[in-house]
Amino acid sequence: METAASTLDALETPCLLLDETRMTRNIERLNALMAGHGVRLRPHLKTPKSIEVARRLMATPQGPAAVSTLQEAEQFAAAGVTDLLYAVGVSPSKLDRVLALRQRGVDLTVVVDSIEAARAVSARAKAAGDPIPALIEIDCDGHRAGVQPKDTDQLLAIARVLHEDGACLRGVMTHAGESYGCRSVEAIADMAEQERWAAVSCAEAIRGAGLPCPVVSVGSTPTAHFARKLDGVTEVRAGVYVFFDLVMAGLGVCSVDDIAATVLTTVIGHQPEKGWILVDAGWMAMSRDRGTAKQPVDQLYGLVCDADGKVYPDVLLAETNQEQGIVKVRPGSSGVLPDLPIGAKLRIVPNHACATCAQHDAYEVVRPGEPGVVARWERFRGW
Amino acid sequence: METAASTLDALETPCLLLDETRMTRNIERLNALMAGHGVRLRPHLKTPKSIEVARRLMATPQGPAAVSTLQEAEQFAAAGVTDLLYAVGVSPSKLDRVLALRQRGVDLTVVVDSIEAARAVSARAKAAGDPIPALIEIDCDGHRAGVQPKDTDQLLAIARVLHEDGACLRGVMTHAGESYGCRSVEAIADMAEQERWAAVSCAEAIRGAGLPCPVVSVGSTPTAHFARKLDGVTEVRAGVYVFFDLVMAGLGVCSVDDIAATVLTTVIGHQPEKGWILVDAGWMAMSRDRGTAKQPVDQLYGLVCDADGKVYPDVLLAETNQEQGIVKVRPGSSGVLPDLPIGAKLRIVPNHACATCAQHDAYEVVRPGEPGVVARWERFRGW
Repeated sequence: METAASTLDALETPCLLLDETRMTRNIERLNALMAGHGVRLRPHLKTPKSIEVARRLMATPQGPAAVSTLQEAEQFAAAGVTDLLYAVGVSPSKLDRVLALRQRGVDLTVVVDSIEAARAVSARAKAAGDPIPALIEIDCDGHRAGVQPKDTDQLLAIARVLHEDGACLRGVMTHAGESYGCRSVEAIADMAEQERWAAVSCAEAIRGAGLPCPVVSVGSTPTAHFARKLDGVTEVRAGVYVFFDLVMAGLGVCSVDDIAATVLTTVIGHQPEKGWILVDAGWMAMSRDRGTAKQPVDQLYGLVCDADGKVYPDVLLAETNQEQGIVKVRPGSSGVLPDLPIGAKLRIVPNHACATCAQHDAYEVVRPGEPGVVARWERFRGW
Repeated sequence: METAASTLDALETPCLLLDETRMTRNIERLNALMAGHGVRLRPHLKTPKSIEVARRLMATPQGPAAVSTLQEAEQFAAAGVTDLLYAVGVSPSKLDRVLALRQRGVDLTVVVDSIEAARAVSARAKAAGDPIPALIEIDCDGHRAGVQPKDTDQLLAIARVLHEDGACLRGVMTHAGESYGCRSVEAIADMAEQERWAAVSCAEAIRGAGLPCPVVSVGSTPTAHFARKLDGVTEVRAGVYVFFDLVMAGLGVCSVDDIAATVLTTVIGHQPEKGWILVDAGWMAMSRDRGTAKQPVDQLYGLVCDADGKVYPDVLLAETNQEQGIVKVRPGSSGVLPDLPIGAKLRIVPNHACATCAQHDAYEVVRPGEPGVVARWERFRGW
């Protein structure tokens, strides 16, 4: 009988493998958690950038979902998704594309965090006769953008510009990006509460001023998985959980055996006196993401597995050139470099699924126990 | 009169700008250096991945050129390039595509560094009745792949397998990747001599054994620019010089004003109390490459310029999320954060041109003094 691994030999390497069984398990796990909280999930499609993956992630073929670019919004809209949040602060020059999508029937919401941006959105909305819905971004952890949660004056000023000058004030959103730096599940749960509190308290301030705030949107993959409660939250956003990665495993959000996206590579040489295997996966195939560098266990450019996905303990993709990678044993470990001929296939588990997948144009879909590739799902990219 | 900057407002951001005037100057500089040495240049097309840039780089529309993937080889062959070196160690599974290109009239050369790989190439060449030309890779600096220059037994064993068993022994090649770690122009010049010596001495060993070695190929962008002599070398390979980048500027190979590829981005927000400007160029637009992190001056994710390309001293793209970047003043410097409204455009000078350009599908070509975009040149990618 053919093994799954042997039938992968037909693939050109490097390429991106997607273990559909693991992906389905990851999706079902977060769906079950959100059902337990009674909160709607708005999956973030910036990780998969694929219609086929999106359909498996979303509650319905129409959404809801979040995107990080208008290119994603346009691609998913063309595939029938009608409930979309463009979850990055919008610039005025992007409002034409926002309006064009809305005119095609897409309920596309934008994000602002300043009076200046709110004025631009309201002015364009008024001129177009389309009250563009907007969420106000709240800065729950100092990570990125957003209004400070205690700056109620600023919050309400933005809310009023949206509500009164032409846009539609739909609510608030925040993202606990600092949860990626947590060192325990307890710390992640605390961060989830900080994220929830920031959004809910701002929503209450808006409602207290007599303004509408139907949506309270929070989320990051770590906080979504360990939130103790989500009272007052109407939706949770998360993205990388669909595939997971070594950063999430290092945080304790998943195990390495949950990671669904890997890079298939071929052995192209050896430097035995240096203890190296050379493979055809360099940074072009892996990305330059070194997200585990700040974690207690640095996985360099990724964990090395055999062609079936079984991890070689303490064997790492240690260095990368553009189209070559160097596989080594972790210094100081008891790992053993496998004895592999030129042409042998390996899988590399990546640091950061969003970044690694972005280097590829398609997923080669595999299911453990079934030979070969069961489907090829295209990705898109750009802005 | 419209300025160049104002007419860039029509571009969707983030996008990749290419200053054609700087590119032309960079190309002419290395062409002149190589003419002075009397050595042929084989530009490496892994940096541009664009037919239009390739035509400006190559000595003739047919080449010569080097590539890092067979996808590049196929794309450039389709555009009429017939003299190509696939400069990464070839795996047996890629030989079908190598042979298919050769059957279309492309003089495609491969690289091997082991008896195992040489046997695979010779066996397939013999079976196909096409003596695939191969260079033997030499490890001049411990950086990557290759035969140790003093391991003459191994070198000659590989040479004989290629020459006698079905392939065509075309010569030797080496790449001084460690030149990226040099700390002075003197050190780069020393590394260039080490690279030259490794290749030339191996070529002499092969010829001394009565075997052919017509090609002696060396190169990296730093060593190509500072080699004191190239006696015995028949061709030099270099890639990133076409655009240059902050890593090359940090090495002293170019100045920041030579860097031709930048990312155009839009201001999307401010966090004044933190001293931040938020822009729509995150790691998706810049890549995760932090190549200057190991240099004396760490440029973080890149140097920030105004829309015309004038550098704001000590203003950096300091942090990146997927689709957002955080602009800050370099800590401890006298830099001043510019006062820019939402919607203003900036250019970011990248760490590593190969990695940043790979995140984009096209170059928006600009010429200083001419308004707007003068051309759009597509890039390709994949394997």
